[in-house]
Amino acid sequence: MVELFRKHYPPPGTAPGTLRETRPTQAPGARINLAFRDQGLWTPMQPMDWDQVPVADTLEALHWFHVEGVPSTGELALLGERLGLHPLAMEDVLNGGQRPKVDRYDELLVVTLGVTAENDQGVLRIHQLTLFMGNCFVLSVITDGLDVFPVIRRRLRDHGRALAQTDELLHALMDAAVDHAFPVLDAVGERIEQIEEAMLNRPGQETLERLHRLRRELIVLRRQLWPTRDVLNQILRDHSDLLLPGTRIWMRDIYDHAVQIMDLVESYRDMAGSLLDIYLSTMSNRLNETIRQLTVIATIFMPLTFIAGIYGMNFEHPHSPFSMPELGWYFGYPLILLIMLLVAGSMLWWFRRKHWF
Amino acid sequence: MVELFRKHYPPPGTAPGTLRETRPTQAPGARINLAFRDQGLWTPMQPMDWDQVPVADTLEALHWFHVEGVPSTGELALLGERLGLHPLAMEDVLNGGQRPKVDRYDELLVVTLGVTAENDQGVLRIHQLTLFMGNCFVLSVITDGLDVFPVIRRRLRDHGRALAQTDELLHALMDAAVDHAFPVLDAVGERIEQIEEAMLNRPGQETLERLHRLRRELIVLRRQLWPTRDVLNQILRDHSDLLLPGTRIWMRDIYDHAVQIMDLVESYRDMAGSLLDIYLSTMSNRLNETIRQLTVIATIFMPLTFIAGIYGMNFEHPHSPFSMPELGWYFGYPLILLIMLLVAGSMLWWFRRKHWF
Amino acid sequence: MVELFRKHYPPPGTAPGTLRETRPTQAPGARINLAFRDQGLWTPMQPMDWDQVPVADTLEALHWFHVEGVPSTGELALLGERLGLHPLAMEDVLNGGQRPKVDRYDELLVVTLGVTAENDQGVLRIHQLTLFMGNCFVLSVITDGLDVFPVIRRRLRDHGRALAQTDELLHALMDAAVDHAFPVLDAVGERIEQIEEAMLNRPGQETLERLHRLRRELIVLRRQLWPTRDVLNQILRDHSDLLLPGTRIWMRDIYDHAVQIMDLVESYRDMAGSLLDIYLSTMSNRLNETIRQLTVIATIFMPLTFIAGIYGMNFEHPHSPFSMPELGWYFGYPLILLIMLLVAGSMLWWFRRKHWF
Amino acid sequence: MVELFRKHYPPPGTAPGTLRETRPTQAPGARINLAFRDQGLWTPMQPMDWDQVPVADTLEALHWFHVEGVPSTGELALLGERLGLHPLAMEDVLNGGQRPKVDRYDELLVVTLGVTAENDQGVLRIHQLTLFMGNCFVLSVITDGLDVFPVIRRRLRDHGRALAQTDELLHALMDAAVDHAFPVLDAVGERIEQIEEAMLNRPGQETLERLHRLRRELIVLRRQLWPTRDVLNQILRDHSDLLLPGTRIWMRDIYDHAVQIMDLVESYRDMAGSLLDIYLSTMSNRLNETIRQLTVIATIFMPLTFIAGIYGMNFEHPHSPFSMPELGWYFGYPLILLIMLLVAGSMLWWFRRKHWF
Amino acid sequence: MVELFRKHYPPPGTAPGTLRETRPTQAPGARINLAFRDQGLWTPMQPMDWDQVPVADTLEALHWFHVEGVPSTGELALLGERLGLHPLAMEDVLNGGQRPKVDRYDELLVVTLGVTAENDQGVLRIHQLTLFMGNCFVLSVITDGLDVFPVIRRRLRDHGRALAQTDELLHALMDAAVDHAFPVLDAVGERIEQIEEAMLNRPGQETLERLHRLRRELIVLRRQLWPTRDVLNQILRDHSDLLLPGTRIWMRDIYDHAVQIMDLVESYRDMAGSLLDIYLSTMSNRLNETIRQLTVIATIFMPLTFIAGIYGMNFEHPHSPFSMPELGWYFGYPLILLIMLLVAGSMLWWFRRKHWF
Repeated sequence: MVELFRKHYPPPGTAPGTLRETRPTQAPGARINLAFRDQGLWTPMQPMDWDQVPVADTLEALHWFHVEGVPSTGELALLGERLGLHPLAMEDVLNGGQRPKVDRYDELLVVTLGVTAENDQGVLRIHQLTLFMGNCFVLSVITDGLDVFPVIRRRLRDHGRALAQTDELLHALMDAAVDHAFPVLDAVGERIEQIEEAMLNRPGQETLERLHRLRRELIVLRRQLWPTRDVLNQILRDHSDLLLPGTRIWMRDIYDHAVQIMDLVESYRDMAGSLLDIYLSTMSNRLNETIRQLTVIATIFMPLTFIAGIYGMNFEHPHSPFSMPELGWYFGYPLILLIMLLVAGSMLWWFRRKHWF
Repeated sequence: MVELFRKHYPPPGTAPGTLRETRPTQAPGARINLAFRDQGLWTPMQPMDWDQVPVADTLEALHWFHVEGVPSTGELALLGERLGLHPLAMEDVLNGGQRPKVDRYDELLVVTLGVTAENDQGVLRIHQLTLFMGNCFVLSVITDGLDVFPVIRRRLRDHGRALAQTDELLHALMDAAVDHAFPVLDAVGERIEQIEEAMLNRPGQETLERLHRLRRELIVLRRQLWPTRDVLNQILRDHSDLLLPGTRIWMRDIYDHAVQIMDLVESYRDMAGSLLDIYLSTMSNRLNETIRQLTVIATIFMPLTFIAGIYGMNFEHPHSPFSMPELGWYFGYPLILLIMLLVAGSMLWWFRRKHWF
Repeated sequence: MVELFRKHYPPPGTAPGTLRETRPTQAPGARINLAFRDQGLWTPMQPMDWDQVPVADTLEALHWFHVEGVPSTGELALLGERLGLHPLAMEDVLNGGQRPKVDRYDELLVVTLGVTAENDQGVLRIHQLTLFMGNCFVLSVITDGLDVFPVIRRRLRDHGRALAQTDELLHALMDAAVDHAFPVLDAVGERIEQIEEAMLNRPGQETLERLHRLRRELIVLRRQLWPTRDVLNQILRDHSDLLLPGTRIWMRDIYDHAVQIMDLVESYRDMAGSLLDIYLSTMSNRLNETIRQLTVIATIFMPLTFIAGIYGMNFEHPHSPFSMPELGWYFGYPLILLIMLLVAGSMLWWFRRKHWF
Repeated sequence: MVELFRKHYPPPGTAPGTLRETRPTQAPGARINLAFRDQGLWTPMQPMDWDQVPVADTLEALHWFHVEGVPSTGELALLGERLGLHPLAMEDVLNGGQRPKVDRYDELLVVTLGVTAENDQGVLRIHQLTLFMGNCFVLSVITDGLDVFPVIRRRLRDHGRALAQTDELLHALMDAAVDHAFPVLDAVGERIEQIEEAMLNRPGQETLERLHRLRRELIVLRRQLWPTRDVLNQILRDHSDLLLPGTRIWMRDIYDHAVQIMDLVESYRDMAGSLLDIYLSTMSNRLNETIRQLTVIATIFMPLTFIAGIYGMNFEHPHSPFSMPELGWYFGYPLILLIMLLVAGSMLWWFRRKHWF
Repeated sequence: MVELFRKHYPPPGTAPGTLRETRPTQAPGARINLAFRDQGLWTPMQPMDWDQVPVADTLEALHWFHVEGVPSTGELALLGERLGLHPLAMEDVLNGGQRPKVDRYDELLVVTLGVTAENDQGVLRIHQLTLFMGNCFVLSVITDGLDVFPVIRRRLRDHGRALAQTDELLHALMDAAVDHAFPVLDAVGERIEQIEEAMLNRPGQETLERLHRLRRELIVLRRQLWPTRDVLNQILRDHSDLLLPGTRIWMRDIYDHAVQIMDLVESYRDMAGSLLDIYLSTMSNRLNETIRQLTVIATIFMPLTFIAGIYGMNFEHPHSPFSMPELGWYFGYPLILLIMLLVAGSMLWWFRRKHWF
């Protein structure tokens, strides 16, 4: 299941901006890749060594650094020194589980987003993506080893002239990150429809647990996706000096997507609530029906058994005419059977009239 | 049922504004129609060929292009080239399932709305309507083959001088689109009243499923109709430079309708919630009554059967005066019957006092 | 019951401002009445003919026109022509079921309110009141034949000098319309207390239906009363140029009433929710108690009947010492009765210890 | 219980500001008291006659008039005339049940508050306190005979130089009125903890009714206390010209108290909701357990009784070897008893395995 | 459990700023400690005597006073006199249970926060921390004896040059206080996951009580943590003149943490609600299953027992052919057994078809 609490945090009181190792020891090391523009054309993305990272001020053409995995504090400190990153932003990269946000340190814009994806077992995962946009470079760090940008790498390869500015590249990466929610929501919508079908036809503990898992995922999704909208809003409102006029329109487009995603999440939450109501109501229905059947059975057979019990009594005063004379009647037995039949019949008639079956 | 997720989306990372074919292969092709003003009078709307679409800058009188169905990427690209449409807006036409919104690209105003309608099977459908207003033309695209504007076509035919400006035409189309919600909500109100009647008199699984379907539709309706209000608000606030003063008042009227529609949807949601409460409470009532009946039956017949059981025991020590002497009494049997009658009677009296029946 | 959907609407696409007959054919015609100031004194209100309505520009002293019932399109068009009313406002008069709102057309202020009242059967009704304030006249239209202004007519008769300005008259009419909610809410409060009493002492299906009816009315009331507050707010904020300074203070007083009314409606909704919880909890309590009784009965009599059943078995091997020798014991029967008594007693003791009765 | 609707209201349409007698005829008359500063020192508060009330403009030193009980219209009109009160404010005094609010008529500031207190029977009561602050006087009217200001009277007596300005006095009275909510909320918190304890250990109808009463009180409290915050806010924002700079800080302190009170009320509402959930869940638990017991009993004894019933049948063909030969076996009876023991034992084993007891 | 109401309050009407003893008599006295910068280096924190507290105006280097425990009114008055604290702020220190807030008195900034921590028994506690920032000193008062700043003391010891300004020190203390919520929320998240696991697998009264305790804690946490965000916001918006530009960025970082904490609390509340739904649904499931089993048992054995009862009747007219002739048939007994088998079998087949087991 999705984890509810995912943040790494240092002991309270630690100086903010302190870098602490958070990579599990058995996890594979982080890799850094680079694509850059050369004479107005993108070179394909290539792995590089950490100490080959150039100093930001010496860059002349647009560089895109992409880090996969949690870097060690040493690697991150090196990156920070070369590219001029702010310690707070680097701390957030390591601590993970951040709320989507946008921060600005003079020329440096830092956007933290959550990329939603399902892993191979169909379990929802939120991958933290941190994007740094400097004067001549964009640095993207995805800490959970998800391949977020295959389509963008293909675009760079096929249309080498595309994405010529830092803000265009930033937009493309953010766009890809936000749009990752669509296939997830599509799948969630399908799951809701399956659960709905199950709830109406064969509700049970297993369906209930699927619904619970769904609601849990929607809670986590919501926590991730709500602030995404604010991030876009803040960029458009406060940091548009870093964007070219053309890019603003495209950013507004991402904003629209973020709003649409939130709308979907809210609708799904409503649906999940409605499904739970359906479940409880159907259960209450079934209970009613089972109890009705029990009542019908008891109401029919209890009087009959009682009558049979009466004539099982051993009253046998030989001379008393009151000592169960029926037992000795010629037609006594068929008469009693008839009475029983009448009792049962009238009960059934009564239940039928009450529409109990 | 209404679909929860209806959006087409390209692989995340695709360059925004990329046109992708979304028309199902077996779907019929899109048709384009044209009505235009000639010497201050409207010509009736006529089908036209895609390549006859004129270039926007050459238009002299008001033209209304109306596209029915999902156009192919080629047709749309042609339209975009001739009329100067922005790629993002064209992408939205193809992807469908958009949230109502308004976008502006310099002189071009793009309004996306959802037209609510019930199909022949009484199933609610949201049809996406995209309206483009340029300098001298209005382009309307309805992608799901609903005939939205019969009344407006009649108005053009009967009052050829009406709707002389682009913003008047835009207003008329938006007005028709928004007002399509009224008959739908009228029908929903009627359904709520039917479900209410059923809930109070004969609640059951079938009524429950009708209520669930209703709630689902209200969730989808709400997602569509909330943003409609914002669209109107935004037009009045940000884009009133494109409207004549007279049209502003009429736009405010649509705004009032949108607010009224939202109020209705919210009230209906409240009602649906209240109906579910009624259902659960009535079910709980019935359960109580059934169980009471079972208890009454059991409480009366269990002691009686027990008494009968006692006298069915085979104690028969011939000389013991303690060996069920009652069996040999002269009035033993009637006495026991009397006792049974008293037991049953007092039980009944007790239940009556507790108002159990 | 209150109707959920009450609006008349033309086919979507109809030109706004089109007047359509909405009066049911069997309904009585609308009547127009007039009171006006003559030499600084009010003449009493008198019925007048529709074609005697003067042209607004020719009026010299304050006129109050009051229309009762839904006017025909002809009558309304005449009114509109003489008094210079805007078509949109006139359309709203005919269509009914409007949301409270305020509109302004140059010099003309149009206020639409809902007057809440109970009819003779104690059913809540919302009557639409439209108020037009021009330069020298006020026109009030109440479309559902409720006598809203008896107290104001009396004030005019008794204090002929009162209400000398259009805005004072408008204020008086709005004040009366808004305050009509107080007796209704008073009655609702009383009903809530009755239902509360019934819920706690004798909950049942009938009480449940009363609660449901109450909630339905609160939903409709809320939809009507929320926007009333906005209407007052808008008048104070946007149209205070039409009010004398003194009238502003009185308008603020209506605003306070509107807020107080909304507070009451919200509290009542909370109370209604709380009552439903009480109902469900009490029902659950009763169910528990009934089932406990059933369990007590079954737990006591099932073992007893079983014991009696044992000794009703016909084992009768004449020589076997194992063939129910108890049957032949001298004290066998009293012994068994004693055992039964012990079983029943210990069961009862056990239930008593569990505080089951 | 707290009343839901407490407002007196005149017939709708009555001229606002009309004074109407609202004091119940059997209620004791209102008393007016006066304390004033003489040579920079407070004289103790003394009862005075209504016609001794001085004219506001002639006052030279700070006067504090305090009215206890609902004044008659005559007394109020006299007060209004002498102190220059606005008719709307006087009407609010008489009508009671007002929402907390602040009004300003030129130099006159009118603050209406609700003082929460429990009466001797522990029933919550909201007492309306109206405070008028003029140039040289403060008039406080508490209409329900609660002694709100004992501590302030003591302060005046002990520190005669304190509260030298109208706004300081106003602050002191408001502070005392708002802080009256703390002991009430303290008591409510204690009641919640008692109900919580009862809910977890011995839930029942009586606890349920206590919870309901609590929720009702919280609904009324909330309606009273929410607007208190707005009153303080409005004073600080709009009327700070009437306050000395020093008093502003103290007013902000009341504002903080009002916010804290609201936070508590909201938390208590959440707690009350949580307690209801506990109640319903515990009830559902108990039901489950009772029904389990019933099922255990029935599952054990029904088969046993059936077996006993079999051997109670009177098949007795003398020569048929199939006519219940078991009855005649030497070890028949013990064998059957053994079988019964096995059946009962295996049932018990099965229930034990299902952790049913 | 966490206390719902924790505030000390004086009798309503007491002059605000009055210091009242609130320390329980048996509680240990408060201790004051001091750390200060000497020649640009921090001396380690040392206990000091109350009367050694210097006068604020004479301070030349940054001093940090830290008070542990509730000071007596005398000690606090002394502090107030020497450091120039405002009486309202000092009153808040004594009264405890304050809502997080920020106040400013000229040069003095007072920040009140709640530090969340679990005590040794795993019970959540909110400790009130009040921070005063003057020109040359910071005074921190933690009234509940929690060691909040061990890490900061270590930082001062290890990096004597750090935290050279009052606002940096204030930031560090606030940062530590706010971050104390992370381990608590981490633990809460873990508890939710444990309860979730228990709810799905073995729901019961004990799990229910754990859930209730959790919800109670979340209610209290929320009340504490919501206003923390506003405190940060207010500092950034209104009091940034007291902050160096560098500190602003760090304060924004605390703000981000506060928002993230609130997001978590809200998600946890949602989860807790979802868990309750799970609980009720699972309970309803189990009830259904138990009742089904009861119904199966009753439906099978009641008819069988009835049949056995029939043949236990003592009809024995010697010559009547209708007097239970079956009893005398040669294959009567096996036939009846067969019939019973058929009845039981068909019942079982029917239940199987209804998927009841």
